[in-house]
Amino acid sequence: MAEQNVRIVLARRPQGTVTAECFGSERTGIPEPAEGEVIVRNRLLSLDPYMRPRMTELHSYTPPFELDQPLTGGGIGEIIKSRTDRLAEGDVVVGMLDWALYTRHNGIGLRKIDPAAAPLPAFLGILGMPGFTAWHGIKRIGQPKPGETVFVSAATGAVGQLAGQLARLAGARVVGCAGSSAKCDWATRELGYDACFDHRRERDYARVLRELCPKGIDVDFENVGGAIFHAVFAAMNNFGRMIMCGMISEYQDSTPQLGPEKMFTIVQKRLRIEGFIVSDHVRDMGSFLSEVGGLLRDGKIKSRETIVEGLANAPSAFLGLLQGENFGKLIVRIA
Amino acid sequence: MAEQNVRIVLARRPQGTVTAECFGSERTGIPEPAEGEVIVRNRLLSLDPYMRPRMTELHSYTPPFELDQPLTGGGIGEIIKSRTDRLAEGDVVVGMLDWALYTRHNGIGLRKIDPAAAPLPAFLGILGMPGFTAWHGIKRIGQPKPGETVFVSAATGAVGQLAGQLARLAGARVVGCAGSSAKCDWATRELGYDACFDHRRERDYARVLRELCPKGIDVDFENVGGAIFHAVFAAMNNFGRMIMCGMISEYQDSTPQLGPEKMFTIVQKRLRIEGFIVSDHVRDMGSFLSEVGGLLRDGKIKSRETIVEGLANAPSAFLGLLQGENFGKLIVRIA
Repeated sequence: MAEQNVRIVLARRPQGTVTAECFGSERTGIPEPAEGEVIVRNRLLSLDPYMRPRMTELHSYTPPFELDQPLTGGGIGEIIKSRTDRLAEGDVVVGMLDWALYTRHNGIGLRKIDPAAAPLPAFLGILGMPGFTAWHGIKRIGQPKPGETVFVSAATGAVGQLAGQLARLAGARVVGCAGSSAKCDWATRELGYDACFDHRRERDYARVLRELCPKGIDVDFENVGGAIFHAVFAAMNNFGRMIMCGMISEYQDSTPQLGPEKMFTIVQKRLRIEGFIVSDHVRDMGSFLSEVGGLLRDGKIKSRETIVEGLANAPSAFLGLLQGENFGKLIVRIA
Repeated sequence: MAEQNVRIVLARRPQGTVTAECFGSERTGIPEPAEGEVIVRNRLLSLDPYMRPRMTELHSYTPPFELDQPLTGGGIGEIIKSRTDRLAEGDVVVGMLDWALYTRHNGIGLRKIDPAAAPLPAFLGILGMPGFTAWHGIKRIGQPKPGETVFVSAATGAVGQLAGQLARLAGARVVGCAGSSAKCDWATRELGYDACFDHRRERDYARVLRELCPKGIDVDFENVGGAIFHAVFAAMNNFGRMIMCGMISEYQDSTPQLGPEKMFTIVQKRLRIEGFIVSDHVRDMGSFLSEVGGLLRDGKIKSRETIVEGLANAPSAFLGLLQGENFGKLIVRIA
């Protein structure tokens, strides 16, 4: 056990693109729990695009990260000290943890997990917040029907990979885009996408969507925003649903982009465009875990993670995430 | 009875703003019904903004008007000849009629009305398609709750006037905009709007919305589009609903406008933006008529029409409608 805690803090707020200078590192003592608190030894940290808006004061829906305080995110760790009856030493928990070796925590939102039930990274990915996000968007908002066409941007990302597979299981034709030909290959060969294009090579999104979605798009699972979103908007069918989950391409814009042209399309085509944040829907977590856990056990869905070793590499891994360098769910393993 | 029929036809499709040259007039014989058909002597014609997109080939959701054929729209008339058992001579009907003195009709969608039940213009306004549109948007999409703030653009228009009153009856604070101070006065004095601003005098929509909607906007009933829509979008509250009904300000744009900036707002604020076309929902017409008919009889809601005399004045009245010159529902009375 380390003698000291190490924490990655927000050293400055980004203007546009996040840089390494936005992060700082500090050493402190290992914290002691107050009454009702626990100390978690962190094992895995989840890096997710939504953390980028939290780095900026105005852009966030969750409260922004505080300057000179540790960044926080989903994580898995082991209780090493407990002053609450709810959690005992040795429990393995998932919840919001510091980017640190140890987290002092009031226990709220920490959920005990069974490490034998699935590989630990799955609890941060396909059985965690990203999977729950995909499940909520597809099941509660998009509700694809057999024969419909579903488009998933960031098709192989932590959220997109399950969104695409759930759409396929619903009987839809599933088309995606991803940031490399290797990702697209994986999407079509392993995840069951009917087609996937590399958005870094393709320039004419309208043309490629016409080609890959000849019947138009009924459901869009939006993770990217920007030019791809605008092209998908124009390709939507009557009564289409746009599941507004994230817009990673716009998070780093210092001058905000305008929306797609012809907003009257929303009326003409009777579109429903609906944003959501999955933490509003924790009451459905049980239904999600039961359904997706079952699919995973039965081998009906797959998942993939990129695991980066060492807390010190979390900032650079996060910068890479915002550039699409990860393949699947991005996780930092703490030694 | 006229010896001849007169019909207003689409002489050319507009490029941008509609002009008088887009309309033609022709005289024909009074039509004869084929088996299953009726001849309607038209009495009232409803002029509505959605007819503008129908004049352009690409912009329409309903089929576009055909060149050199009469324009059609909601109307009321009397059956003067019938070759169907469903309708008899003397019946007064509402449905899609030609811009003409007489309409030859296959009877589909013609609904018999009781002229004693309400003044005839009401069947084209508050008890007709515009009223049904307002009712569907508020009841089925917006669903304002007591204490919420509802914004209605084109607050005194055929649709807006009922949308605002239904929102008030639901217990919401109701704010609108309209195109003159006289309209705003009527909105606040007679319709029960809490506030209304003149969008022709006001330039800083963001500021006036902050002032009149200090708690933000929970439900937007969108009739106008463009700059007002963009300002409302930015002022929406978490879990807000945007009822996308029409965008009159954009119908005449020959170069399409871009959407509002920061589409990520949809995610952050969990907005639901939903377009609809009321003709998809005719199964609910009975519920609408029962509820709004009751409110009208009980004096709980009001309505207002502008009635223009004479078929020949329909084109100029329609041009005025697109400029917001009408006050309330615009109707043409045929001599």
